Amino acid sequence: MSQIQFTRNEQPKAKPDANHLGFGKYFTDHMLVMDYTEDQGWHDLQIVPYGPISLDPSAMVFHYGQEVFEGMKAYKTADGRISLFRPDMNLKRLNASCERISIPQVDPEALMEGIVELVSVDREWIPEGDDTSLYLRPFIIATEPCLGVRAAKEYKLMVILSPVGSYYPEGIHPVSIYVEDEYVRAVRGGTGMAKTSGNYASGIKAQEIAKLEGFSQVLWLDGVEKKYIEEVGSMNVFFKIGGEVITPELSGSILAGVTRDSAIALLRSWGLPVTERKLSVAELFQAARDGKLEEAFGTGTAAVISPIGTMKWGDEQISIAGGDTGEWSRKLYEAITGIQKGLLDDPFGWRQIIL
Amino acid sequence: MSQIQFTRNEQPKAKPDANHLGFGKYFTDHMLVMDYTEDQGWHDLQIVPYGPISLDPSAMVFHYGQEVFEGMKAYKTADGRISLFRPDMNLKRLNASCERISIPQVDPEALMEGIVELVSVDREWIPEGDDTSLYLRPFIIATEPCLGVRAAKEYKLMVILSPVGSYYPEGIHPVSIYVEDEYVRAVRGGTGMAKTSGNYASGIKAQEIAKLEGFSQVLWLDGVEKKYIEEVGSMNVFFKIGGEVITPELSGSILAGVTRDSAIALLRSWGLPVTERKLSVAELFQAARDGKLEEAFGTGTAAVISPIGTMKWGDEQISIAGGDTGEWSRKLYEAITGIQKGLLDDPFGWRQIIL
Ligand SMILES: Cc1ncc(COP(=O)(O)O)c(C=O)c1O
Ligand SMILES: Cc1ncc(COP(=O)(O)O)c(C=O)c1O
Repeated sequence: MSQIQFTRNEQPKAKPDANHLGFGKYFTDHMLVMDYTEDQGWHDLQIVPYGPISLDPSAMVFHYGQEVFEGMKAYKTADGRISLFRPDMNLKRLNASCERISIPQVDPEALMEGIVELVSVDREWIPEGDDTSLYLRPFIIATEPCLGVRAAKEYKLMVILSPVGSYYPEGIHPVSIYVEDEYVRAVRGGTGMAKTSGNYASGIKAQEIAKLEGFSQVLWLDGVEKKYIEEVGSMNVFFKIGGEVITPELSGSILAGVTRDSAIALLRSWGLPVTERKLSVAELFQAARDGKLEEAFGTGTAAVISPIGTMKWGDEQISIAGGDTGEWSRKLYEAITGIQKGLLDDPFGWRQIIL
Repeated sequence: MSQIQFTRNEQPKAKPDANHLGFGKYFTDHMLVMDYTEDQGWHDLQIVPYGPISLDPSAMVFHYGQEVFEGMKAYKTADGRISLFRPDMNLKRLNASCERISIPQVDPEALMEGIVELVSVDREWIPEGDDTSLYLRPFIIATEPCLGVRAAKEYKLMVILSPVGSYYPEGIHPVSIYVEDEYVRAVRGGTGMAKTSGNYASGIKAQEIAKLEGFSQVLWLDGVEKKYIEEVGSMNVFFKIGGEVITPELSGSILAGVTRDSAIALLRSWGLPVTERKLSVAELFQAARDGKLEEAFGTGTAAVISPIGTMKWGDEQISIAGGDTGEWSRKLYEAITGIQKGLLDDPFGWRQIIL
């Protein structure tokens, strides 16, 4: 097992029922940890039994939120192998997030090697049912025990694994969206392009309000003019208007989704024009009134493709694709999950067989 | 000791040298903890030996940043008592932060009682030198072990105590400020009015750049127009221009500082006009060029008053009050610390003698 230190969990847990996994509720028997100090840099990558970590209450992550994370999935392929989907993009984005939050860069190759070992150790945990996979959550927290607002000098990187079912209990099913025009998730010059905990904390309240009003997700507008569409929930968002697919450009306050990038490439390969540009919610609703809004969907690792059935902005509510899963949403979902699970050809070389 | 559960630390630490405390580096022998579950609400307030806490790696605080905190100080007064400064405002603000971050409200009276007990238990830790005090850090973290972006169902509240010296190694001494016009700390509709970790993570990078350029703090502009002055470092900010004191209004992206509120009241009681309004950095620099910018200072619990000696915006650098500590900065510093330490009358009833 190369030079990675490994401590086997001698008390493995019972595996959960693969039909009721939910999302992020169960964790496997092992986890990866790696520490950073000023003297040694990143060091001591280990695979150890999954279990609680012990931190000083003054650990900086508890006070000043220096944290970044990633999310990706491992799949059992049709021929019994194990694949990841474009993990290089996740590791690159992890370092981009680190850069924004002043966390030291991680060697992507060493981390990738550790991740492969970890998945290998816990491979029995990868569920096999439809819409299931093993979710990988790498994250880094500032552990230095000090109350001073500055970059920490000590960090811990961990990777934990969770067997998951559909992100939405209903599976691929149109969601209802509420256009949020009071609360803001991120702003140009802020941290929206980084995968860092504070972005998510800031979104919880709006999401609770949307739920109370009967909607399942929030559509975020830009923080400057509250006019342009940014993301939906924790997903990037696409609209098909008059035969053209439009998705918000990566302006600095939007996360550069791996699924977003993949959806753009696939749609283009199918001959559909895709434009990355600013799209105002007013333009979108006008297109809906004119009968030109043909389809809308969110993209993200957790749900892959999330068709949008209805959308409410102020007093106006629109229905999209008759409230159903549109043609291209379904095609994308099938293409991406097909590539991930080894059921389809992989023309872009996205599937990475690791075991 | 009322109904608070107390476990004495049987291995008390040696106290640090009162002349080299720094800020937030040493912690006392005990801490307060209280847990929240959906069933029981906040319960089990305890005072226990200071020490590490154990959390599942999937604890939501590590991923989605649901966290709020406060900062206040306890002082030994001239006649040997122990005082806090307007702690009711901190507890009110804690709950305001909780509201924004969807954390359940805390009973301020129960928490206050716990804080008094905790300070009492560790009263020997309150340093007595000039510019020293015992810093109190209440904070709340989401502890539920689950990877789902929503409000957690389990939380832990803690209060830790740190004997501190001057926040700035130089003591009350003019600082140099860099006007940040790329990175943004907070925006209207975001979380700037809450004391939550994500706001601080987002500011670290700009602060590092400022340090590299030889400045000690960043002046933040509003996230929408990048035109109006918001805060400086982790402080509110005041300017005296042509005899009038101006401080940014509480627009929603600025923290409502306890020191800010106190400075406004004191300045007004001394007959100075104080206006809370939008102030653009262009207006400020014009006032400086016109010779009307008489004084500038930051306010905050950590440093109390931090005079601003120089300020750089783009290519222009101005010197304020001859680069020295201005008259009103000094008066405010002496008035506030005098009230805190029981050396001066307390006309507003801000000093709360707790022991
Ligand atoms: C805010 C946000 N936007 C978009 C995405 C989609 O990114 P990806 O497709 O890489 O999962 C995520 C993560 O899943 C996210 O957290
Ligand atoms: C962002 C920010 N602004 C202003 C302040 C000043 O608030 P207070 O005077 O209550 O300490 C603080 C905290 O110290 C802060 O963190």
